[in-house]
Amino acid sequence: MAAEVAYMHASKIANASGALRYLNRVGSSKVARLADSAPREVVDDIFSCALKKQTGVSLKYMLDFGANPIERQLILSAQFLHNELPVRLAHRVAELENLPFGLSAKSPVIKVRDWYVESFKELRQFKPIRDLDSELKFTELLKHIYHRHRNVVPVMAIGVAELKKELRAEGNGLTEFPEIHQFLDGFYLSRIGIRILIGQHIALHEPQRENHIGMICTKCSPVQVANDAIADARSVCMREYATAPEVSVYGDPRFTFAYVPSHLHHMTFELVKNSLRAVNDRFEDADNEPPPVRVVVAEGDEDVTIKVSDEGGGIPRSGLPRIWTYLYSTAQSPLPDMDDSVEGADGPAVLAGYGYGLPISRLYARYFGGDLQITSMEGYGTDAYLHLNRLGNVQEPLP
Amino acid sequence: MAAEVAYMHASKIANASGALRYLNRVGSSKVARLADSAPREVVDDIFSCALKKQTGVSLKYMLDFGANPIERQLILSAQFLHNELPVRLAHRVAELENLPFGLSAKSPVIKVRDWYVESFKELRQFKPIRDLDSELKFTELLKHIYHRHRNVVPVMAIGVAELKKELRAEGNGLTEFPEIHQFLDGFYLSRIGIRILIGQHIALHEPQRENHIGMICTKCSPVQVANDAIADARSVCMREYATAPEVSVYGDPRFTFAYVPSHLHHMTFELVKNSLRAVNDRFEDADNEPPPVRVVVAEGDEDVTIKVSDEGGGIPRSGLPRIWTYLYSTAQSPLPDMDDSVEGADGPAVLAGYGYGLPISRLYARYFGGDLQITSMEGYGTDAYLHLNRLGNVQEPLP
Repeated sequence: MAAEVAYMHASKIANASGALRYLNRVGSSKVARLADSAPREVVDDIFSCALKKQTGVSLKYMLDFGANPIERQLILSAQFLHNELPVRLAHRVAELENLPFGLSAKSPVIKVRDWYVESFKELRQFKPIRDLDSELKFTELLKHIYHRHRNVVPVMAIGVAELKKELRAEGNGLTEFPEIHQFLDGFYLSRIGIRILIGQHIALHEPQRENHIGMICTKCSPVQVANDAIADARSVCMREYATAPEVSVYGDPRFTFAYVPSHLHHMTFELVKNSLRAVNDRFEDADNEPPPVRVVVAEGDEDVTIKVSDEGGGIPRSGLPRIWTYLYSTAQSPLPDMDDSVEGADGPAVLAGYGYGLPISRLYARYFGGDLQITSMEGYGTDAYLHLNRLGNVQEPLP
Repeated sequence: MAAEVAYMHASKIANASGALRYLNRVGSSKVARLADSAPREVVDDIFSCALKKQTGVSLKYMLDFGANPIERQLILSAQFLHNELPVRLAHRVAELENLPFGLSAKSPVIKVRDWYVESFKELRQFKPIRDLDSELKFTELLKHIYHRHRNVVPVMAIGVAELKKELRAEGNGLTEFPEIHQFLDGFYLSRIGIRILIGQHIALHEPQRENHIGMICTKCSPVQVANDAIADARSVCMREYATAPEVSVYGDPRFTFAYVPSHLHHMTFELVKNSLRAVNDRFEDADNEPPPVRVVVAEGDEDVTIKVSDEGGGIPRSGLPRIWTYLYSTAQSPLPDMDDSVEGADGPAVLAGYGYGLPISRLYARYFGGDLQITSMEGYGTDAYLHLNRLGNVQEPLP
């Protein structure tokens, strides 16, 4: 019942305090820019919604919510999203209008903003949902929106790369820009939340799998997910190097907890892939077998922790901040094609080249109250700790 | 020569900007408190010295300095300390006069402050050092001061414990007090610096050991120091538990770098001791042998890293901040006796019971530009990473 109440009261909670800063930051000339391409009433509606407070949910809420009969779930969930999504999208549009260093004026960023504006308009034009028939039409709209936003991460990456190129030309190449980093962290975290809400609603329409409530698996085995992710990472490594170091897994495969397996797979894949690369690069010319990557799954009362350790030589302490930045990438990073074959940010493959894998994985962990920490021993190897909150009652962070 | 120039110009650098805040913070009523127990001219002199800028040195400076002929070294070093120590002591007196939450009024804190005032007075009364004869007398004074301040850490701990008791009675038991933590971090870090400067000068008078410049060993083997620290920690553990887990060491014993072996021993002992305890507590009733503690020594270009890993069950992520606080301690922590048999904070034994071992070890690491990081996997074990700056040209931090 708690979830139901939270969902139903969503639209009633409107607190301007947190959102006012957007309007303060968005000067008239900046608003005019969006006003150039959108009708006045849409612009007004967006900034009015950007003043409303976003309503967070938690993994536990989603699970409790799944205990309702399916028809009631569908209508309540659709009504919640119909109110909540425009608010979340409007927050992002207001933010995208006022980025520092001229990032707002980059055409890829304008493209992303227009996707948000378009989805906002469609949601606001949709009539109130009262029956299963309108719920079904609303779900079609959600699928359409989900698909429209699939390339947000790579397209934003192009905008950021353009900015980085300019900054480098001005001699600021690898300097940190905390404002940009903070914006991207918040922006991508918000995107994870929006896509989970939509994905979860769509999943309620699909045939229910055993031990699943939508995208959430109530009996998710971290050892099993890790084994799958290891197999995928080793096969990517095989394609790239024609060889792949061994990976040893320590932990009880029978242990399960409630989590979203696709997120867990994404994060573990990213960490194992990085470790395999480091080990391969270090032991390329060695005669002996390279040391195995070690994956330990630990079961605590608060957290489930997955540690991925390698002896791939590590990185210096001074280089550690770089692994988390969106502005740093290695020479091999190609810009993505803009055509439709580019996949969304929910599969790991598209991120491989952009150096976004670790910061995005950390956001996935933080979304449900966890964290990702990486420590390195220069000259030896790297340890990554993926902490996953086990209680699942941490409310989602809402940038 | 760089070190020599730095030493000789020490007294000429006087910048009021950083120190002015002391005088702003120290209101007239606070100054009056010190004025109650000290003559007006001493109080004035202290606050005038607290306005002067402290002059930092680095490990590399100390090593370069050691290349001078011994007589010249002794006189230059004494002249530098004669100028520098009163400035550093005065900064601490000004700070101790104006602590938050009434900590300044606790009698143990006043006791510590009076040690600083006393040493300040003796140094200021000492005539300029021009020859080896006055240098020798000055060194006697330094030994006297070094001895006077030996109990600063445990006596301050009593003051902090009294405050903690009061705060707990007001229902603030385990809450963090960042001001107190920040003060103690800075205060103890300053103490480490002062004691190294004095200790290094005293050591210049002692018979020079091979590969040593004062307290610094130019060929310090971290594996060898770790082995010594492990033997000590296991023997402490044996006394306490009548058994001690095995410790495996991985690393090249022939690898050496310039460091202060007593610091390295202190920090490694602390980490290994904690790991042994955790493993013993977890496997007390187990039939099998407990899993060994693992110590890895890694040799990087920037850093030497010593990792101490155990499978002692770890601590929850939410409990991790507590291991760094001076306000938290376990039930077993006794207050130290105030008699002379209490040893200074430079040996690890005295700190064992106060929960100060980890924060003080981190300060030792940071003093020469390193760091101490601890990550835990709840339900499995803890990894501690001791990063030691290998270049040694980081200037000492001066709170």
